[in-house]
Amino acid sequence: MFDTLTPLEAMDEARFDRAVARLRADLLDAQYSILEQARTPVILLIAGVAGAGRGVVVNTLNEWMDPRHIRTSAFGPRDEAERLRPHMWRFWHALPSRGRTAIMFDAWYSETIRDRVDRRIKRPAFGRALQSIRRFEHMLAMEEAVVLKFWLHLDAGTQHARFKALEKDTATRWRVTPEDWHEHRHHRRLCKVAEDVIRQTDDPHAPWHLIDARDTGLCELAVGRIVLRALRATLAGRPPRPAPLPPPSRAVAEAPVAPVAPASEPAGASRPMTKAQYQPALEALQGRLNLLLRQPAFDARSLVLVFEGMDAAGKGGAIRRITHAMDARYYRVHPVAAPTEHERRYPWLWRFWRDVPRNGRTGLFDRSWYGRVLVERVEGFAEPADWARAYDEINAFEQEWVAHGAIVCKFWLDVSPDEQLKRFNERSRTRFKRFKITPDDWRNREKWPAYLPAVRDMLARTHTEAAPWALIGSDDKYRARLDILRTVCVRLESALG
Amino acid sequence: MFDTLTPLEAMDEARFDRAVARLRADLLDAQYSILEQARTPVILLIAGVAGAGRGVVVNTLNEWMDPRHIRTSAFGPRDEAERLRPHMWRFWHALPSRGRTAIMFDAWYSETIRDRVDRRIKRPAFGRALQSIRRFEHMLAMEEAVVLKFWLHLDAGTQHARFKALEKDTATRWRVTPEDWHEHRHHRRLCKVAEDVIRQTDDPHAPWHLIDARDTGLCELAVGRIVLRALRATLAGRPPRPAPLPPPSRAVAEAPVAPVAPASEPAGASRPMTKAQYQPALEALQGRLNLLLRQPAFDARSLVLVFEGMDAAGKGGAIRRITHAMDARYYRVHPVAAPTEHERRYPWLWRFWRDVPRNGRTGLFDRSWYGRVLVERVEGFAEPADWARAYDEINAFEQEWVAHGAIVCKFWLDVSPDEQLKRFNERSRTRFKRFKITPDDWRNREKWPAYLPAVRDMLARTHTEAAPWALIGSDDKYRARLDILRTVCVRLESALG
Repeated sequence: MFDTLTPLEAMDEARFDRAVARLRADLLDAQYSILEQARTPVILLIAGVAGAGRGVVVNTLNEWMDPRHIRTSAFGPRDEAERLRPHMWRFWHALPSRGRTAIMFDAWYSETIRDRVDRRIKRPAFGRALQSIRRFEHMLAMEEAVVLKFWLHLDAGTQHARFKALEKDTATRWRVTPEDWHEHRHHRRLCKVAEDVIRQTDDPHAPWHLIDARDTGLCELAVGRIVLRALRATLAGRPPRPAPLPPPSRAVAEAPVAPVAPASEPAGASRPMTKAQYQPALEALQGRLNLLLRQPAFDARSLVLVFEGMDAAGKGGAIRRITHAMDARYYRVHPVAAPTEHERRYPWLWRFWRDVPRNGRTGLFDRSWYGRVLVERVEGFAEPADWARAYDEINAFEQEWVAHGAIVCKFWLDVSPDEQLKRFNERSRTRFKRFKITPDDWRNREKWPAYLPAVRDMLARTHTEAAPWALIGSDDKYRARLDILRTVCVRLESALG
Repeated sequence: MFDTLTPLEAMDEARFDRAVARLRADLLDAQYSILEQARTPVILLIAGVAGAGRGVVVNTLNEWMDPRHIRTSAFGPRDEAERLRPHMWRFWHALPSRGRTAIMFDAWYSETIRDRVDRRIKRPAFGRALQSIRRFEHMLAMEEAVVLKFWLHLDAGTQHARFKALEKDTATRWRVTPEDWHEHRHHRRLCKVAEDVIRQTDDPHAPWHLIDARDTGLCELAVGRIVLRALRATLAGRPPRPAPLPPPSRAVAEAPVAPVAPASEPAGASRPMTKAQYQPALEALQGRLNLLLRQPAFDARSLVLVFEGMDAAGKGGAIRRITHAMDARYYRVHPVAAPTEHERRYPWLWRFWRDVPRNGRTGLFDRSWYGRVLVERVEGFAEPADWARAYDEINAFEQEWVAHGAIVCKFWLDVSPDEQLKRFNERSRTRFKRFKITPDDWRNREKWPAYLPAVRDMLARTHTEAAPWALIGSDDKYRARLDILRTVCVRLESALG
């Protein structure tokens, strides 16, 4: 691949200067049009071998375009905040909003490439990592992002000569680091791995461009022209069509979603539970949960509790009984409503990535990302093509968290229409509960039949081994709360060993 | 103070229930009105002795009000991200936006109180910490926040009995921790320190309320009623008038702002510098800067570079020459424009707190928080009372960063009207530079006379020892860039020893 790389066309200085001046003006126009449309985030990923001039290219792009609407990110060794959260967290943070541009050094490729070059991961893990990158870039493209990836190539000889020249001059000697020489010694292997990466992740919606970096000026010109072409295609309404992806490898759990087995319940389960039965059972479960969360093993895990259910199903009450067992410093409740104007400027899952609990912490979601396939589907807030792809995106998203050690429990609180009506009426009668009941709630109640297929599809398509659903019969509030607490305890016990 | 604490009025169950029902309804109404106004952030700080039921009170407030508009924060031991940034950083992050409510456990009081109880800080440091808290709360009040602080008190005997009762029951035993018993043993000293804290930080705009916490229900009722009263006063347009603060103790540097001494400049400084003189000097300074930033001592410091100046003074060009000497992973350039809708919902300095560089990193600000006393003053975007208080707020803000180890260099790039005109015309002529020149720039140029007193006041009132200004004559671009780089190097050399 690199052997047959087309050399860039040489040009004399005058012609070069004219070309750059024209490109700068055109790039600026395109940047402003993209900004004005405020629909497309632009992501430019600059990768390549050491000494190829990634930094110079990034600086030049910042100089050619208006840097006030560009954010440049480079990713160093992970700090504690990054180590305690899923792998992709820091990249989600660096995503640009619609209309803006992000220039990123290496980004989500650097660790995978380096691990493979240094043989810290084997071929299958390497393949899985690349597949998960493809899924991520596919999501970006579906969210209308322009994603362009550049690999700046230098042959070993030119790399060597460039390092030597820099080292000869005391003023520039500092630019060559021991890491650069380390990379030089493994030049051949790096190129082999890079070839593999480029072949497997070169999608029409996130294409790789290999650039001969021997002449820095020509290299900048080539990069700038490719960026311009892509921005213009997008402005003309001809963005590349996302390639279809292979089916996800994550197994959807084979077992149907089962209601929580009432294994340790007292006898007489069919009758409503009395407060006298409930109270001691609640306290016992709260104590059990508290001790579990204090286990040292939990420091390397995190707990994600997702609560979904029709209005008045008892989500808030259940959450309060759980947090009552927790240290306030180590959990956070996230009530999820419609996305704000600000949040809508990012890929739809972005706002949930902000709330990833770090290791040792718990995040409780009162409604969640499942709104995408529930209310947004039923109300038509999301296009069918968009909510339809959300199942796989959600599975990949939860899988990311689980891979980092998160224990994810999802609860569907199943309330009957009759019980809901009873609770609505009770809320309307009590002055301080009136805020819990709005005209929207009555309207949603009328849409109940439309929610049934949405709920069924959600349970069927996102009940995974990594993040299973528990179906909680919620007409009996007390029993529902105990079922939920017990499920959390059982999951924690099995996860913490 | 605590000895003479008024016991709460006892009431029978029926009266209590009626009172709570009415309070809940009223609190909700008030919360929704505040939310609708979207002007006042509400901050409820719940502190007190162990076992007094802070957690229960917080849960109850969340139950009484609509928890979807409340964010509860508790602050545990500092994690790495928090340790590597200034002390107040995590509290700024937890501030609510206008209309919303934050409930915080202990917040910015806990570490100061604990340090004083355990005698880790002496009286003068303790006093300084309290003064800086007063300044912070004063700023919150000036930004229209409702700040209410509660201290829940229990005498030692009741505390002891409460712990014992919890420990007797296996289901609740986990609620009493070794830290609780530790605090119990120091109950008398904690109360003494708390008295001191309360006396010194009890301002009308951020009052303390001492509550007898022996009866949890009555305590909740008392807290809720105080919250209601304060919200209603704010809604009625009668928020408490902020108390004046003592003058800040931070010394404004006595020396007038001096132009950077051209100590190490080549001879012939009065003639414009040629590219042949400039280029080697630039490279030498870049190398010197790069080595300085790699010193191990810099890992415990951070570098903050602020660039202000009239349009076309050369801020962007100077910044690029600096970043060219830096590792892209360890710096970030922040171009500062008018605050967004989203940012305007927070205290005005909030958006800059998001960009604090952590230790070992550099933040470069292309325009900055000084916009408050420049463009916002000149254009009338900020009320005179608001930009007038900004000088002290800025000094306190920079002082916070410096206290944590930041090296703050502020540059005023001084360009003459003639040179500016020349650059404007040149920009207009070059197609790819046209984006740098807008009708606003011409308009600002006409306002030059109005900027002069604003610049003079800014330099006079924020040129501090901790964060001095350097005045850079910028008509000669090359010389200006070298002066800036040299100033940064000299500051780093003296700071890193």
